[in-house]
Amino acid sequence: MHNAEIIAIGSEMLTPDRVDTNSLFLTDELNKAGVEVVQKQVIGDDRERIASAVRRAVRTVEFVIVSGGLGPTEDDVTRDAVALALDRRQIFYPEISGAIEERFRRMNRVMPEINKRQAMVIEGAHILPNDRGTAPGQWIDENGSVVMILPGPPHELKSMFSRQCLPRIVRLVPPTVIQTLVLRVAGMSESDLDQTISPIYKRYENPVTTVLAHNGDIQVHLRARCDTEGRAMELLAEVGGQIDVALGDRIYSRNGDPLEVVVGAKLLAQHGTLVVAESATGGGLAERISSVPGSSTYFLGGYVTYAKRLKTDLLGVSEELLKQFGTVSRETAEAMAIGARRRTGATWAVSITGNAGPTADGDEAPVGTIYIGLAGPRDTTVQHRLWPASDRPRVRAFAAQMALDMLNRKLDAA
Amino acid sequence: MHNAEIIAIGSEMLTPDRVDTNSLFLTDELNKAGVEVVQKQVIGDDRERIASAVRRAVRTVEFVIVSGGLGPTEDDVTRDAVALALDRRQIFYPEISGAIEERFRRMNRVMPEINKRQAMVIEGAHILPNDRGTAPGQWIDENGSVVMILPGPPHELKSMFSRQCLPRIVRLVPPTVIQTLVLRVAGMSESDLDQTISPIYKRYENPVTTVLAHNGDIQVHLRARCDTEGRAMELLAEVGGQIDVALGDRIYSRNGDPLEVVVGAKLLAQHGTLVVAESATGGGLAERISSVPGSSTYFLGGYVTYAKRLKTDLLGVSEELLKQFGTVSRETAEAMAIGARRRTGATWAVSITGNAGPTADGDEAPVGTIYIGLAGPRDTTVQHRLWPASDRPRVRAFAAQMALDMLNRKLDAA
Repeated sequence: MHNAEIIAIGSEMLTPDRVDTNSLFLTDELNKAGVEVVQKQVIGDDRERIASAVRRAVRTVEFVIVSGGLGPTEDDVTRDAVALALDRRQIFYPEISGAIEERFRRMNRVMPEINKRQAMVIEGAHILPNDRGTAPGQWIDENGSVVMILPGPPHELKSMFSRQCLPRIVRLVPPTVIQTLVLRVAGMSESDLDQTISPIYKRYENPVTTVLAHNGDIQVHLRARCDTEGRAMELLAEVGGQIDVALGDRIYSRNGDPLEVVVGAKLLAQHGTLVVAESATGGGLAERISSVPGSSTYFLGGYVTYAKRLKTDLLGVSEELLKQFGTVSRETAEAMAIGARRRTGATWAVSITGNAGPTADGDEAPVGTIYIGLAGPRDTTVQHRLWPASDRPRVRAFAAQMALDMLNRKLDAA
Repeated sequence: MHNAEIIAIGSEMLTPDRVDTNSLFLTDELNKAGVEVVQKQVIGDDRERIASAVRRAVRTVEFVIVSGGLGPTEDDVTRDAVALALDRRQIFYPEISGAIEERFRRMNRVMPEINKRQAMVIEGAHILPNDRGTAPGQWIDENGSVVMILPGPPHELKSMFSRQCLPRIVRLVPPTVIQTLVLRVAGMSESDLDQTISPIYKRYENPVTTVLAHNGDIQVHLRARCDTEGRAMELLAEVGGQIDVALGDRIYSRNGDPLEVVVGAKLLAQHGTLVVAESATGGGLAERISSVPGSSTYFLGGYVTYAKRLKTDLLGVSEELLKQFGTVSRETAEAMAIGARRRTGATWAVSITGNAGPTADGDEAPVGTIYIGLAGPRDTTVQHRLWPASDRPRVRAFAAQMALDMLNRKLDAA
């Protein structure tokens, strides 16, 4: 397996508000070329730290990409640091200096003296001309590894990497095909899922299996890497097939689509329409359903009945029922769904009532309590869950996910 | 200056689609405590690589924060790697195992056997209990430095770091006063804003000024670092005061509160109530308003009238009006707001109709067109905007932001 490390230089990426996004682009391109990124880091404009990181990286991976810190100012120490790490001299290239001067002249400006620093090249490096800016990049072979130095601005880096680095990398790495299978799962915890499927995927180094969980939604990523597409597909079928059997109907999607897209496609196929009646989630379920382009074909809309009075006025939930059972109850969820369905004529109505916190109000159910109602052509069902230790945004997100899961299962049975 | 390194563990953060966001939170908190982050990295679930990074970090910085990879599965090697780096044993703590078991029991589940791994503690570590999940954290003193091991899920990490690590860090670092001023701005573009205020803030190295824009919301962060609070406040007043004058009523918040909180506070003070009638945003505005704890006091709820028919049935927008002017029109926005206000008795009703794309349907307005209606005690106003080059999620987010901005200005005038 060919591997790479990405080292981004710049103190501004060590503040609370900035992230390094160049590495996402580089990772994508490297993966496609069959190179895995095994480590990435951000280092400030500090010669010793950068040199130390480059020295270590060049001993442990095949491709080291160092980006940023090639500007003309004294802050920009990347070239010096890499020269230090590799113990090589730097050489002044008059032709690079001339090209930078020419670039300034085209913009009717005179090149500041400090820009001459950008014409320094590490001994033995291949120069990578910069068609988008002043600082050229460098490609340096070192004991079977390669160190690439690239400019930090994204449009300069992308152009230089795609046009000049990738073709060289492809010549060094035998062609690899990468195929991915994404299974999405609802209605079980990450640890239950892992206990079920890890005995399967642990037996295989290829494909590589990763489990990702976010707000009640779990994704299982299988990534097979082979020399032919056929072999990669075979491996995915072999491992994915076993996981598929183990998880059964917990899997709601085998192509990466999220639950709102899966539910939308089923509604479309069944010519069904959907409305929502939301209390605790306050519009979050509707927002998710309507985030799908074209959802207006099956999603009519619905109600956000945050206040108790609107549950009565807009959905016809009787005041006695609210008084007797409370707004957070099985009975209220049921009445909300029935009311929303009746008043809109939709095929399906999903209701959510609960207490997302942070505090329990008087007569209400404990924080984290959620009831989901689902009214359809044949019946109305209600499910109940309690997420006691979760904060307000998570309870709301879990509740919307659970509502979509419940609807999805019902549509399968319809 | 005290320094820190952040090491995030997880192969999923080395893919093209994920970034490590925990480090942004940690950097912010560390900066406030007077600790600078000098390096950060992401490493896959690889024991040797993690151990090597921790071994080096603990020699070069005062605080090493290692997050993620504390789960119950065999992929999770962080504890083992840190133990290896520090050459210490791990000890099984039955009381931690018992607490995890109890947590599962409260959710009516049985603890899977593999979760017992989470009860392993590195010799000499202080245990950091996890109030949001199963994996406890650890605080390990090592030759004058500290290694903290924290869980990866953001809500678990944040809670543990703020409550248990920060107080310990503050005891080790002499007080540096950092004062921050956050101005939030709506209704202008990032480049217009920067052109207006950069001549002011560029003249100061302290405070450091950062401009952040996200979905139509702009934040100007001023961060002053001094040895006394008085001096820091003086600096903020000096620079912030000039920016304040330059931006005037474009500033809607001077304490970091988002627009939905600012609007909520004004509604509360004026004893006003609010409903929404959303088409293009499909519930996103309601979701934002109701994300504020306690919003049920002033936010009644409202309507998601995604289908044309619901605009008529639920809001009383006449079919003739829809036919004559189209669903995406000034007239429809006005009628939606008036209908929502009348049918709920709320003080204010905000409506949104538009075309968020990706395609324009037949007679509809061009992609990116949005009309916002605002009906109040005295009149109903409509505003129109076009964001032609934005994608669906951005148009929807811009629209919700603009609706809140419009309501906020109206509440100021009320």
